[in-house]
Amino acid sequence: MARLNLKLLLFLLIAVVSCTLVTYIFTCGHPTSSHTSFIHRLKESSSPESRGKLYEELLCSINGMYHISCRKEGREVFIPFSFLEKYYEVYGKLTKNRGHEQFEWSHSYSKVFKPTTRYNSSGMFMYFSNYNVEVRDRVKCISATEGVPVSTQWEASGYYYPVQVAQYGLSHYSKNLSDRPPKRKVLEDGNLVTAKWQVPKGASVKRNYDYEKFTHVLEFNSHDSPGISLKLKQGIDLVLSFDLRFLSMNGSLTIFLEDRDRSTIFPVSFVCSPVLIHVLNSSAGSYSTNYGLGSCQNWNQLTRDLHVDLVKGHVLSGRGKKLSKTKLRIHHLLIKGHGQLDNLTLASSNHMGMFYSSADWLVRHQDSSGGWPIGVKRKIASGKADLDPGWYSAMGQGQAMSLLIRAYYRSGESHYLEAALKGMKPFSKSSTEGGVRAYFMNQYPWYEEYPTVPPSFVLNGFIYSLIGLYDVLSLAPHDQVGDAQLLFDQGMHSLKKLLPLFDTGSGTVYDLRHFTLGLAPNIARWDYHSTHINQLLLLSTIDSDPILTTIASRWISYMSGKRAAHN
Amino acid sequence: MARLNLKLLLFLLIAVVSCTLVTYIFTCGHPTSSHTSFIHRLKESSSPESRGKLYEELLCSINGMYHISCRKEGREVFIPFSFLEKYYEVYGKLTKNRGHEQFEWSHSYSKVFKPTTRYNSSGMFMYFSNYNVEVRDRVKCISATEGVPVSTQWEASGYYYPVQVAQYGLSHYSKNLSDRPPKRKVLEDGNLVTAKWQVPKGASVKRNYDYEKFTHVLEFNSHDSPGISLKLKQGIDLVLSFDLRFLSMNGSLTIFLEDRDRSTIFPVSFVCSPVLIHVLNSSAGSYSTNYGLGSCQNWNQLTRDLHVDLVKGHVLSGRGKKLSKTKLRIHHLLIKGHGQLDNLTLASSNHMGMFYSSADWLVRHQDSSGGWPIGVKRKIASGKADLDPGWYSAMGQGQAMSLLIRAYYRSGESHYLEAALKGMKPFSKSSTEGGVRAYFMNQYPWYEEYPTVPPSFVLNGFIYSLIGLYDVLSLAPHDQVGDAQLLFDQGMHSLKKLLPLFDTGSGTVYDLRHFTLGLAPNIARWDYHSTHINQLLLLSTIDSDPILTTIASRWISYMSGKRAAHN
Repeated sequence: MARLNLKLLLFLLIAVVSCTLVTYIFTCGHPTSSHTSFIHRLKESSSPESRGKLYEELLCSINGMYHISCRKEGREVFIPFSFLEKYYEVYGKLTKNRGHEQFEWSHSYSKVFKPTTRYNSSGMFMYFSNYNVEVRDRVKCISATEGVPVSTQWEASGYYYPVQVAQYGLSHYSKNLSDRPPKRKVLEDGNLVTAKWQVPKGASVKRNYDYEKFTHVLEFNSHDSPGISLKLKQGIDLVLSFDLRFLSMNGSLTIFLEDRDRSTIFPVSFVCSPVLIHVLNSSAGSYSTNYGLGSCQNWNQLTRDLHVDLVKGHVLSGRGKKLSKTKLRIHHLLIKGHGQLDNLTLASSNHMGMFYSSADWLVRHQDSSGGWPIGVKRKIASGKADLDPGWYSAMGQGQAMSLLIRAYYRSGESHYLEAALKGMKPFSKSSTEGGVRAYFMNQYPWYEEYPTVPPSFVLNGFIYSLIGLYDVLSLAPHDQVGDAQLLFDQGMHSLKKLLPLFDTGSGTVYDLRHFTLGLAPNIARWDYHSTHINQLLLLSTIDSDPILTTIASRWISYMSGKRAAHN
Repeated sequence: MARLNLKLLLFLLIAVVSCTLVTYIFTCGHPTSSHTSFIHRLKESSSPESRGKLYEELLCSINGMYHISCRKEGREVFIPFSFLEKYYEVYGKLTKNRGHEQFEWSHSYSKVFKPTTRYNSSGMFMYFSNYNVEVRDRVKCISATEGVPVSTQWEASGYYYPVQVAQYGLSHYSKNLSDRPPKRKVLEDGNLVTAKWQVPKGASVKRNYDYEKFTHVLEFNSHDSPGISLKLKQGIDLVLSFDLRFLSMNGSLTIFLEDRDRSTIFPVSFVCSPVLIHVLNSSAGSYSTNYGLGSCQNWNQLTRDLHVDLVKGHVLSGRGKKLSKTKLRIHHLLIKGHGQLDNLTLASSNHMGMFYSSADWLVRHQDSSGGWPIGVKRKIASGKADLDPGWYSAMGQGQAMSLLIRAYYRSGESHYLEAALKGMKPFSKSSTEGGVRAYFMNQYPWYEEYPTVPPSFVLNGFIYSLIGLYDVLSLAPHDQVGDAQLLFDQGMHSLKKLLPLFDTGSGTVYDLRHFTLGLAPNIARWDYHSTHINQLLLLSTIDSDPILTTIASRWISYMSGKRAAHN
């Protein structure tokens, strides 16, 4: 009461001393109501009905628990979006529509990509061409020894996560199909194309035939000089490939990137070191980023997105991740030490190079059980179901298979096929015995993204594993597919049966941990929800069972606020 | 654009020709903004920050699908409740709080009753003392031959629904424990208490010993007179009990009710007729309601809530169901024909009489398999899983058991115990063979409210069946409980395991038809949701497993808008 009386006082005070809307109401003789507080007429409203309605403040009691300030106009009550935003987790923003401000209310923030054609195992992988795996925060950097991303998601020191490696490769495979062909310029191949190296006194370069590589290479030796450099023409291409080995114990290849606006130089070096990435802050306030080549006396074939390489150093130097790609160019290269260089190439992109880096990593790191063991502990549901290092992920297996079978399809190289086929082995082994196969109530097999005991039944990972099986089925020679058909059919059968358990009537759950671990349902955030839908839509192009489209349609409708009916 | 230009035109027109807020803005020289439409200053707002903010109309684009009219004030956007109400199915109403108008936002409309003591099988049944089964729309009337409600829920012609019969009895049992003791006045018992009957010429009353009833009764014979009447003192008690049989082929007992305001007389008659209820509209615009006594030559023991009896006639006469109980009184009684009357009693209530009516009905109508067959077809999910007439309901069995074991506890009569024990029989028989027992994935037994094939796994009905088993376990002699313990334990085990499947993260599903029939989830409306909670809270007083309270707490939180976390 005290509060309201104060308001009244304030109201009267303003009314007396100033020429305002309020005094107008008094002086022009149109008092709108006997209400004492906060009343306006909305005279100019567009709709005749609302003209002359009262606009006032009103307290809203929310479930009898607390109050918020609302507005009232006639019989309509208006609720502040800042409340709804949190209460319902709905999204909104003010935008301009043809010059007029409007408010965009969005039930979800995610998108569904409706497929227009039947899924093709040799084509793009889902909508992965939109993915930029390497720029994700949880990617520490692209390893210079392995050519694949290093994850920090579950272990800050970094590790190779097969799912991420496969996604990196699949995204570049897909970009290769969706992007325009890259611009590509060979700078030095030791033979036909030669670069104009600036060789200081005491240093040397020569081109000769290498009997290990069966090709001409550039041999360099900087001796005691500051290094052999190559000035590059101004250009926007930032993907550099090269083959490099050192004959000396130490050596480096440094790319000097220039931020054209700030006239700052950022050196990115590839050095003889076992350290993945190392940032050196200089006293002058600048820094340099070093990538370790490991045993640099062997030939290293590198494909580097220098923007990504620089950003990762930028982040590690504590400068954040904002470094616009469009403002960077390569200023010059500098080689130190004694070694050999070949196929130095600058391109606008090299998606296939990155794709094969992933494929090769998967071939190198597959174990004898066909699995790609994951070297970090994974805690599910705050430690209720842990996975000790060395676990396999059905999703990792499936995505690796999707990638490897594409590598086989593109290259014809049988070792990719063999790895893809071997990747199926953990699907037949129980998750209680180190495999990825679980059963829902001992009846429906499920390939586990996280093969916890009890099982967690993650939906999106399971479907990715089914897509991997389907890709193998589609592209491997028929007489070599082994269990792929059986595993795929069993999985599809389980999927169709258990899909409804993921339906909350207004969204989806990410997994069935509420059922197996007795926890609260683990609601899928909108991007996982739309992943579920995108996956079902993909499957619906290869399996005509109406349950896939029926459920996908219902789940799509949830994204704009529809709900399943209540009784 | 055209629409907005029109608005601008209108705006300018108003500005020129009339003394309004708008002209004020122009003439007093405080244009608030360059916006062309619908702008106000909120000068008198209580908070200093919001003072001087603009209040304007703004279009809200809802999920890019349609637009609604919102309001904007500073950076805050206000959304009309009339939109939110439908979009989110949330509830709101304008109320007064200490004289000030406020708006009450309610996430749900239902209530939870937190138990304060351990559940007692001989005590009140849940919160059924709040139930008024007989006044529900789907109750046609209380049968005068059976003394229990007749349902029209799934068949308009009416049928006895064991679940409803049991709920009627359990609600009166509970009311008997919660209400103050009834006022009760015996009007005539043929012996010690005698009423002042007005016996017209040619008619007769006498009191004599009845060798069938082993008591004195009133024998009446109206012969050709208009009937023998009894004028009653003005009072508010409307529950009339009497034992009646006719020695003639026809006869009636009519109670004349009076609406004190309107001075209208409403006759309610109990007549020799097989017709359940019959309403006779008179030419004068009034009507009378007749209840058939069936074979009226046998003794009928009736306990009638005359308000309910009248309301049901009122509804059937097409006059709606509004007939205030507080305005009714009994004016007089009239008997016609030749017959016997005993124990004529007027009371404020007779809950135990009604309770035993239910118990007796259940004893009379139990079949040799221990079931209470339901004589109507039940369609589940628009015909996808139908139950043909004659099906049993585990909920009906359970609630009947809860009622019968209380009747045994109160009366000591063994036939109630026997019926309660026999009621368990369908729990051990598969729903595919006419029983109520289904299995979730062949592993977890479930007692089906609707024993469809495939099963529907209705949650609340299952829990009611468990409570019935528990009541039998608690009150039946230990050496006679048979399978009750096993059935209860198995059921509780299933319940705890499957409960999470009913959790949507923001509410509950009523059943698992989405899983078994592949339909959309059947979301439980808020009253069923609160029933789920109330049932779990009851069970938590007899079973200390924390899963019951954990889930109940989570489900309670959903009622005020909380949701399970998303990942």
